[in-house]
Amino acid sequence: MRAAVMRGSRLVVDTVPEPEPATGEMLVRTLACGICGSDLHALTHASKVVEAAREAGDSPFTMDPSRDVVMGHEFCAEVVDYGPDTTGAFKPGERVVSMPLLFRGSAIQAIGYSNDVPGGYGELMVLSAGLALPVPNGLSTEHAALTEPMAVGVHAVEKAHMEPHDAALVIGCGPVGLAVIAALKLKGTEPIIASDLSPRRRALGERMGAHAVVDPRQRPIIDAYREIADLRPAVVFECVGIPGMLRDIMRHAPHGARIVVAGVCMDDDTIRPLVGINKELSLQFVLGYTPFEFQDTLAAIADGRIDVAPLVTGSVGVEGVAQAFRDLATPEQHAKILVEPWRS
Amino acid sequence: MRAAVMRGSRLVVDTVPEPEPATGEMLVRTLACGICGSDLHALTHASKVVEAAREAGDSPFTMDPSRDVVMGHEFCAEVVDYGPDTTGAFKPGERVVSMPLLFRGSAIQAIGYSNDVPGGYGELMVLSAGLALPVPNGLSTEHAALTEPMAVGVHAVEKAHMEPHDAALVIGCGPVGLAVIAALKLKGTEPIIASDLSPRRRALGERMGAHAVVDPRQRPIIDAYREIADLRPAVVFECVGIPGMLRDIMRHAPHGARIVVAGVCMDDDTIRPLVGINKELSLQFVLGYTPFEFQDTLAAIADGRIDVAPLVTGSVGVEGVAQAFRDLATPEQHAKILVEPWRS
Repeated sequence: MRAAVMRGSRLVVDTVPEPEPATGEMLVRTLACGICGSDLHALTHASKVVEAAREAGDSPFTMDPSRDVVMGHEFCAEVVDYGPDTTGAFKPGERVVSMPLLFRGSAIQAIGYSNDVPGGYGELMVLSAGLALPVPNGLSTEHAALTEPMAVGVHAVEKAHMEPHDAALVIGCGPVGLAVIAALKLKGTEPIIASDLSPRRRALGERMGAHAVVDPRQRPIIDAYREIADLRPAVVFECVGIPGMLRDIMRHAPHGARIVVAGVCMDDDTIRPLVGINKELSLQFVLGYTPFEFQDTLAAIADGRIDVAPLVTGSVGVEGVAQAFRDLATPEQHAKILVEPWRS
Repeated sequence: MRAAVMRGSRLVVDTVPEPEPATGEMLVRTLACGICGSDLHALTHASKVVEAAREAGDSPFTMDPSRDVVMGHEFCAEVVDYGPDTTGAFKPGERVVSMPLLFRGSAIQAIGYSNDVPGGYGELMVLSAGLALPVPNGLSTEHAALTEPMAVGVHAVEKAHMEPHDAALVIGCGPVGLAVIAALKLKGTEPIIASDLSPRRRALGERMGAHAVVDPRQRPIIDAYREIADLRPAVVFECVGIPGMLRDIMRHAPHGARIVVAGVCMDDDTIRPLVGINKELSLQFVLGYTPFEFQDTLAAIADGRIDVAPLVTGSVGVEGVAQAFRDLATPEQHAKILVEPWRS
């Protein structure tokens, strides 16, 4: 089958073996698969991701970056076939989404970050039949593919344990920040104050539900917070993921702020513990989502409580993936680009 | 009055002006005042403490280290007199403890870290009359003076929001670690697993309530946790406060661990966010205690639910403070040394 393959630090289009569903698995055809910021990171920092996964222990993100990887973990697919001795709830042709995990034997494969099974940048995938969720009628394939990245926001907000009077500060309106904003809106949080360097991203932040957006070069987000929501408990969502952000947030956060670290910083980072101590800050690092959050997110998209339409800004075939990765480096141009491997 | 004075980075005995109680304040005679690890830090790192306090903003720890400071914030004292237009609940000679804060005008002075009011390493202090708590009959002055450091442990454990099945890992059995162990025991947490390089400190850890203690050079605390309490939610109390501890704890902590940062690290510190993300760790930085926690701690000491007797290992007059600071650098020798400025 054809796929966009991560080979070394490059993306190439090649023909790779079709995956074969084992018992308990099903073969699916990828209909649409979003390009995630983590994929951009992984292409340039694969060894760091793997090293940190090993340091953390018991993580499925232990691919060998020197071997081929077909990335893509934000997908909507249609059922093709089942593995041996497996009957599933879906008929061939039915559309599904799934958490990008494959339970195979005693191992868990991270679909999209595995040397052994392909992700959604290829024509076919195998999924654990029990994890797949049906896409409700009326929900477009493109929007269903946004379930995974939106679930990341839903989970981050769940881990924040928002209280009725909390004010939310969202640092960065990339895909993670926008998902967090959508999840905060779903939760009824007010105000949601967001910051981003890019006017396009700030506009998207407002579309997704931010009550105020700031350009941090013009006005620190903490100033907007003090004006709009001073003395309200502050929950700060770090959705940028570059070194120095944590220290900067800790420095400016109000006393007692809860900081949710949703941005994925690939490098070591330096903080000043005394600042955290003086203000009794907390840092909650977050990753992924639970199966329930994933399911709830799909439902919220399907019934319109999360409107993902503003986020989809382009689509490409496998030949377009490398260029799409380059395009996504420019925040003014795109938010989410979907890969549609069936396109010639 | 005579006092042990921090002058530059040295401790000298000198005569300093007697403090004068303002309206709302009372003059007290220091009976006993514990030497805190923070005082040892402050003597050698005063500028870092102040710099971090300024960076954090709205902190009372903004003394000028180039000017004299009479340290000492873990005290029991007897009432001498009241300021003008002030009537208080105590008769002269009655014993009190107090949070080491003085509300004077619109400013808050940190007693023991102030250029303007002396701490307990001097013969006399002024206290906010409304903050003082009576020492119950039958509670010794020496043990009452332990209220402040024990309250630090009570607060750290409160901020951890312990659940019935949580296992506690206490890294470091210095005064903070021992206070945390005592507070965990008070809470009924089991198991409490503690580590320290020093055999004496480990023995104190057991005395204060640890169910298991390890020498981290012989056996990583995480191994003891896996043996005793594997799969129980882990709450790790960092009570050492040196650079590299957080990274090390994050690396070895189990998935989902809550890390309470009670150790006061004076330097910048480097962490690996990806490890925190992969394991969804949280860091809660803590400082001090609430007035309620302070009061509860005094009650717990008074009625024997916290037994502080093992902690008091020595006492000195003001002339002995400098040597006591040196002695406290060796964990085998002492736990808590009390300064008794009335001693000749």
